[in-house]
Amino acid sequence: MHDTSDLLSRTDLDFLLHDWLRVEDLTDRPRFAEHSRSTFDAIIDVCADLARDRFAPHNRRNDTEEPQLVDGRVRLNPDVRPALDALAETGLLSATADHQLGGLQLPRVVHLASAAWFAAANVSTYGYAMLTVANAHLICAHGSDEQVAKFVLPMFEGRFHGTMCLSEPQAGSSLADTKTRARLAEDGTYRVTGTKLWISGGDHELGENIVHLVLARTGAETSGVRGLSLFIVPKFLVNDDGTIGERNDVTLVGLNHKLGFRGTVNTVLSFGDGTHRPRGSGGAVGYLVGAPGEGLAQMFHMMNAIRLEVGACAAALGYTAYRKSLAYARTRPQGRTPGAKSANLPQVPLVEHADIRRMLLAQKSYAEGALGLTLYCARLLDEQESAPDPHERDRAALLLDVLTPIAKSWPSQWCLRGTSLAIQVHGGYGYTRDYDVEQHYRDSRLNPIHEGTHGIQAIDLLGRKTSMRDGAGLDLLDEKIRRTIAAASSLTTEVADHAADLDRARARLVEVTRVLHAHPEPATRLANASIYLEAAGHIVLGWIWLQQLVALGDRDDDFARGKRSTARYFRFYELPRVAPQLDLLASLDRTTVDLDPAWL
Amino acid sequence: MHDTSDLLSRTDLDFLLHDWLRVEDLTDRPRFAEHSRSTFDAIIDVCADLARDRFAPHNRRNDTEEPQLVDGRVRLNPDVRPALDALAETGLLSATADHQLGGLQLPRVVHLASAAWFAAANVSTYGYAMLTVANAHLICAHGSDEQVAKFVLPMFEGRFHGTMCLSEPQAGSSLADTKTRARLAEDGTYRVTGTKLWISGGDHELGENIVHLVLARTGAETSGVRGLSLFIVPKFLVNDDGTIGERNDVTLVGLNHKLGFRGTVNTVLSFGDGTHRPRGSGGAVGYLVGAPGEGLAQMFHMMNAIRLEVGACAAALGYTAYRKSLAYARTRPQGRTPGAKSANLPQVPLVEHADIRRMLLAQKSYAEGALGLTLYCARLLDEQESAPDPHERDRAALLLDVLTPIAKSWPSQWCLRGTSLAIQVHGGYGYTRDYDVEQHYRDSRLNPIHEGTHGIQAIDLLGRKTSMRDGAGLDLLDEKIRRTIAAASSLTTEVADHAADLDRARARLVEVTRVLHAHPEPATRLANASIYLEAAGHIVLGWIWLQQLVALGDRDDDFARGKRSTARYFRFYELPRVAPQLDLLASLDRTTVDLDPAWL
Repeated sequence: MHDTSDLLSRTDLDFLLHDWLRVEDLTDRPRFAEHSRSTFDAIIDVCADLARDRFAPHNRRNDTEEPQLVDGRVRLNPDVRPALDALAETGLLSATADHQLGGLQLPRVVHLASAAWFAAANVSTYGYAMLTVANAHLICAHGSDEQVAKFVLPMFEGRFHGTMCLSEPQAGSSLADTKTRARLAEDGTYRVTGTKLWISGGDHELGENIVHLVLARTGAETSGVRGLSLFIVPKFLVNDDGTIGERNDVTLVGLNHKLGFRGTVNTVLSFGDGTHRPRGSGGAVGYLVGAPGEGLAQMFHMMNAIRLEVGACAAALGYTAYRKSLAYARTRPQGRTPGAKSANLPQVPLVEHADIRRMLLAQKSYAEGALGLTLYCARLLDEQESAPDPHERDRAALLLDVLTPIAKSWPSQWCLRGTSLAIQVHGGYGYTRDYDVEQHYRDSRLNPIHEGTHGIQAIDLLGRKTSMRDGAGLDLLDEKIRRTIAAASSLTTEVADHAADLDRARARLVEVTRVLHAHPEPATRLANASIYLEAAGHIVLGWIWLQQLVALGDRDDDFARGKRSTARYFRFYELPRVAPQLDLLASLDRTTVDLDPAWL
Repeated sequence: MHDTSDLLSRTDLDFLLHDWLRVEDLTDRPRFAEHSRSTFDAIIDVCADLARDRFAPHNRRNDTEEPQLVDGRVRLNPDVRPALDALAETGLLSATADHQLGGLQLPRVVHLASAAWFAAANVSTYGYAMLTVANAHLICAHGSDEQVAKFVLPMFEGRFHGTMCLSEPQAGSSLADTKTRARLAEDGTYRVTGTKLWISGGDHELGENIVHLVLARTGAETSGVRGLSLFIVPKFLVNDDGTIGERNDVTLVGLNHKLGFRGTVNTVLSFGDGTHRPRGSGGAVGYLVGAPGEGLAQMFHMMNAIRLEVGACAAALGYTAYRKSLAYARTRPQGRTPGAKSANLPQVPLVEHADIRRMLLAQKSYAEGALGLTLYCARLLDEQESAPDPHERDRAALLLDVLTPIAKSWPSQWCLRGTSLAIQVHGGYGYTRDYDVEQHYRDSRLNPIHEGTHGIQAIDLLGRKTSMRDGAGLDLLDEKIRRTIAAASSLTTEVADHAADLDRARARLVEVTRVLHAHPEPATRLANASIYLEAAGHIVLGWIWLQQLVALGDRDDDFARGKRSTARYFRFYELPRVAPQLDLLASLDRTTVDLDPAWL
């Protein structure tokens, strides 16, 4: 492999970051003053090369040699650790952190663009880094200086890893039913007791320690979300000098065996069951993060970042599957085109067939659209954190709130479909394990499930994000879309037509949202929240594609023509899905609400 | 497991066969005179029990212990053979064959209903039987009496198995590029030379012999479809007394390792490479089936039956996945419904959530719709073969020709989606290998690929079936749909409304088909054949659901209410997908045709 073009297109990434998102403008801000286009490029180069050289080669092995429980310890594919160590050496783990924490103060948008290479190359090895970084940032935001020093800095160095322990056997999506308890001990620390499920990276020996962030209940309540707090519960206690102390009472109960994403070990953990009780502590020692009762809010701080990362990983999987099926379609001869049926003619490459092109354009529209959307959201994170005008920061935060469920769910849904099309382009070969695409398909199937299912994102969007602050979030999104439409309307016919189609869909979405929010009965209002999420998602992606069209300007090389064809595909083949969805929503249909389960 | 309701619903099957398809009426015909409702019921009971007791238990093992090549021989999961032997003992392998061949003269529609249990229970063990039966019927239709005696009878007894050897490394979908050659020997048999790929059941030791049906070229042509003939090439030669003779020169080159459907061994076979050359024969001995040059026509005789079987298997997989996710959703408590958010209330079962119900209704509409469609087609096979009026036989054959690409592709596409929804209903658990649904999902992913990909079905429908005989096939389909609509329009408002929506979609399909066929340029006409296939498929399914509504009459139990809710789901959530698809087709869009691959 001599280049990285089977992972992502660097040409596209440069276009998205620079021609569209004007990332270089960020270097005018004090936070990013030490950066320049060339430092951004250098970091992306390093990541692309490392992804190709150290991550991609063991992606299949992560799948065929999935983590095993041997004598109570997790045995991982031995290629994982050196890859993560090499990643840590680049400084990418702390790249967006402050200088004072050893960070590079890299813009989030550049960080996401860098990380996408690892996700494309090997999403399950990258998963460990992703969780660790998210965990570290949560403690930075809400923890004490001591907690940052003890736990975050070693995570940034790649010596410690991090997890997020939310779900329990009886509480998957339903966090209000969390049963894990934390009891205040005399020394001001807590003793945590309970079982946590679906914990990615929950146990392994990739580093010196694992920092679990555990959602647990402190007060008298037995259910509800008010009494929930977050606790740092390390696998090993950490001495005041930073050295590793005693084993904490966190026990690996078992591993889950998954359809895909197999390289990321997924565990059941028991806290405080006495297996590893440290001397004199009588339980799993936990440290409260921030104030009691703030657990859910803090967790959502991390969840939003993680949801965006899930979207980006989904995009990266769809992207590499697209690149691989494109390469296959260009070289594999099969059949002849209509009108040239004579068998005396040589066979043509697959890419000459219209149906193959349709599948490639679909994949490209999903992958480049999804990557674009997640980069756009990461750019909003930068605005939220560093825009000079506080009002702009608020607006960025508001827009990001509305877009997050879409940035998580849309890539998850459509890039999964993209990986399925990648299999289809490969034909029978795509169904074999000799090619990468079937693994990308299986890995991708997790994305609509973890970190808030598709249905949870839907309720978040329709039941919360579009109604909060009197609909200010949706108003802002609508304003942004209208602004792009206005700018586009004066450009070429093709761009203006795209804008006009998008404008109709946008107006209808606003209208239907009003109808839904006006309905007094929550069951009916939310019955088709998933359809709403999907319709809103396609409209947002129509907007992302319009922005890309505008950013192309009058560029007229192969790249620009490919983008225009893909935007055209999206306008003709994808955007029209929205109209019947919005009609259904407007009808306030109660088919699902009125159903008696006995009828099924 | 005490019942078979996690495979298929017997209540539904009885409704489809008797209330809707009036299968008992067939017993008025001489061919089926020895049958009655009670013999039909008895056969289905035997199959359902056998599927549950002997097939379902090793479905997972087929996946985890996939076929292996050990010392040049295929080692299968040892549970496969006893299951197939038990299946053979029921007589199901020859069930539809004539009495004189030892068959039961069972109607095809009842056979499909019986077979669906095995596909639901264990599609990859059932795969061996399916291929064997299809092979046997082809030889019955086109072979000599001697060939029938030598090869078909042992297949009907389960002693021999059968394959279909079409694809080659350079010719997957493109059979015109077949290179395998057959040379006439002095004794009137042929010597076959070439490599065949994707051969399911290509080698194993499940019986005494394997009967390969091999597509090969006899004439001087090096490409094209004219010179292709079909040959019986047995793994072992068969002596005139029926005993097993020498090994024939058919060599197992390797196994394919697949995403799913792993229990059905998939092979690369080499014919006539000298590895197993029988004495004095100098090659792989083959016997011409019927006349030279008829290979493709004969093969399509088998292909149509196999395509219908693929559709039925897809339906069965979607069906069992639906039943399993329904059972899970009824018992797994999670969260609370909108408006009852207090965490003091107990959690409700998943099935109480509107979004879960939407996913269950979607699955039910796909599975019961797909099973209905394939049963309808099998009923047409019976009409084609046994209708008293020859004109009715022709009409049944014509309608079946038009419906076959849909009966293959629609269940393949939508029941795959159904299995994905089944995973989603299970949440994180569905992504683990502790539950069946992830395997159903992987197994299902083959269906849009094998026996003619989705794109091949699309060109078959738009490029051939809807235009043949001046569009007589589509006219007949349209007439049939209009007849159901007319009957439905006088029934309840709900049924009449369904009919009215279907009528609009039907009329638009006819109109758009005319536009497409009128276009002079094949590349443009066929560019969006897959979209056409999908739109036509949804319209046909809207019709299948309307027929079920009509067949319900005034029945008003839980079953009937479930059917009505599902038809309503299909009308509101699914049928509206068609309008934008038909608009796209009517626009004769050339996005894919005009694309230069260099732009991608």
